[in-house]
Amino acid sequence: MIVLDRDELARRLDPDRAAAAVEAAYVAASRGEVQLPPVGHLVFDAVGGDCHVKIGHRRGDDVFVVKIATGFPGNRDDPTGPPVNNGASIVLSARTGEVRAVLHDEMTLTDVRTGIGGAVASRTLARPDATRLLVVGTGIQADQQIRWHRALLPHLDEVRVWGRSASRAAEVAARNDASVAPDLDSACAEADVIATVTAATEPLLDAAMIRPGTHITAVGADAPGKHELSPDLLAAAELVVADSVVQCRDHGECSMLPPTAAVVELGAVLAGTARGRTTAGQRTVADLTGIAAQDVAIAAVVLGDD
Amino acid sequence: MIVLDRDELARRLDPDRAAAAVEAAYVAASRGEVQLPPVGHLVFDAVGGDCHVKIGHRRGDDVFVVKIATGFPGNRDDPTGPPVNNGASIVLSARTGEVRAVLHDEMTLTDVRTGIGGAVASRTLARPDATRLLVVGTGIQADQQIRWHRALLPHLDEVRVWGRSASRAAEVAARNDASVAPDLDSACAEADVIATVTAATEPLLDAAMIRPGTHITAVGADAPGKHELSPDLLAAAELVVADSVVQCRDHGECSMLPPTAAVVELGAVLAGTARGRTTAGQRTVADLTGIAAQDVAIAAVVLGDD
Repeated sequence: MIVLDRDELARRLDPDRAAAAVEAAYVAASRGEVQLPPVGHLVFDAVGGDCHVKIGHRRGDDVFVVKIATGFPGNRDDPTGPPVNNGASIVLSARTGEVRAVLHDEMTLTDVRTGIGGAVASRTLARPDATRLLVVGTGIQADQQIRWHRALLPHLDEVRVWGRSASRAAEVAARNDASVAPDLDSACAEADVIATVTAATEPLLDAAMIRPGTHITAVGADAPGKHELSPDLLAAAELVVADSVVQCRDHGECSMLPPTAAVVELGAVLAGTARGRTTAGQRTVADLTGIAAQDVAIAAVVLGDD
Repeated sequence: MIVLDRDELARRLDPDRAAAAVEAAYVAASRGEVQLPPVGHLVFDAVGGDCHVKIGHRRGDDVFVVKIATGFPGNRDDPTGPPVNNGASIVLSARTGEVRAVLHDEMTLTDVRTGIGGAVASRTLARPDATRLLVVGTGIQADQQIRWHRALLPHLDEVRVWGRSASRAAEVAARNDASVAPDLDSACAEADVIATVTAATEPLLDAAMIRPGTHITAVGADAPGKHELSPDLLAAAELVVADSVVQCRDHGECSMLPPTAAVVELGAVLAGTARGRTTAGQRTVADLTGIAAQDVAIAAVVLGDD
């Protein structure tokens, strides 16, 4: 059994293999090739924290993963204390049951797989000649989406950041050699790809703000009550894609859609069994809530088992 | 985050504190003070293995536990390979969500908490002057039950072992300074306490074999289809106690009982809210399927958090 900390995990993360593995994970999940038992959940009322335990195995893989993710908002009260989000992934052999590795990533692998997922969705659905990215939001996923969109979208040459806090947007821009977008409306009108990464509970983007041909990847809505896109924008989009139709209809942007509205799965588009963008003028939306198959894929990559 | 292997865990296990912690765990579980989400389960059809993930937190405790247990019977094919049963427990802070420790016990803590559980049940229900222990079965729990019954029952001065394989029984006896019982019927008649630790699917013990005043602790039935005690023995016993009434009625010895038959919980007897043995002539049975609260308790002990 080996133990890998967050620095070692960052060193082991080959970007190209990680992107390929996450893409393959979407395909496998859409094909029903990933065993995903119900998520285990504990609540700690005394301090307002909680813990989710996700287990997953992709058919044929040599390893499986138990991912433990904690969220303790009370940690914010002590600026020198531990982070709010924390955890580790345990990787075991699917041949012998032995514990292969403890990935003590403190949630960094989740951040990375979420960043890669967003960029894979944008690469799959945006116009192939897309050059201008707008990131809406200033949290850790702003950095991740910029990093991975640059890695996966070859023609990208302009990255702008908008946030409710201009100073935080300036920090993200400075860290990532990007620029600040002072006005959300004009920034949306000028973008080819928009990645929304906020914790918004009221929609920030509506249909009138989005030009024909724009692609939007929304990663903020990962729990009930969070929404970044207005229902009229979802209705106006010619194509709405979800990482998991079941999850996204339950607590993603797609939970705002009527049950009859068409939503196709990202893995099906990647596999060629569902249609993606067909014309340059379509508005497309990818609704990503995060799926356990991504966690399995990223763990295999850092262990060299992909 | 610290990592403790099985040798270090054995060194850290204080017997008295471990016994007290397991006893307290039964009481807490009976009082509904332990959060136990549904068990996560993965199956690996290609090799016939599986994995169970159990999560637990006792109200007020500083830590909680994610226990990963694997069973890969195919490992038997390679005598130099890994064991059939394997796993680890991850201990996290219930105050901050940080990973405190990885207990890479390879199932040894489960063996210990099962051994302690059996001895706690016997100490609680056997006659206080019990001197003669009979262990039925020759697996790893034979050693554990002998060890912990000797630790917790002060008057025990004779230990006998019976097994379908006389040679394996002789090995257990030799390892534990005990003697072999050549005949099960007479051995049962001469015992004050009987611990059954087999994987039997047909009952080994029936009512006619058991003297008045004998206590039986049955730990073998941990899955549907396993049974060590006949229904007539359960019916003849004046007191039947379960570590978890729900689990034992589902897949323990108690699953053979009619739903109307009285079964009381070990934690309730320990807490004094249910009656235990009241006369020296009663036959008593403890049906133990193993509960996650024991895993939480033993993890806290090795970390000094009990």
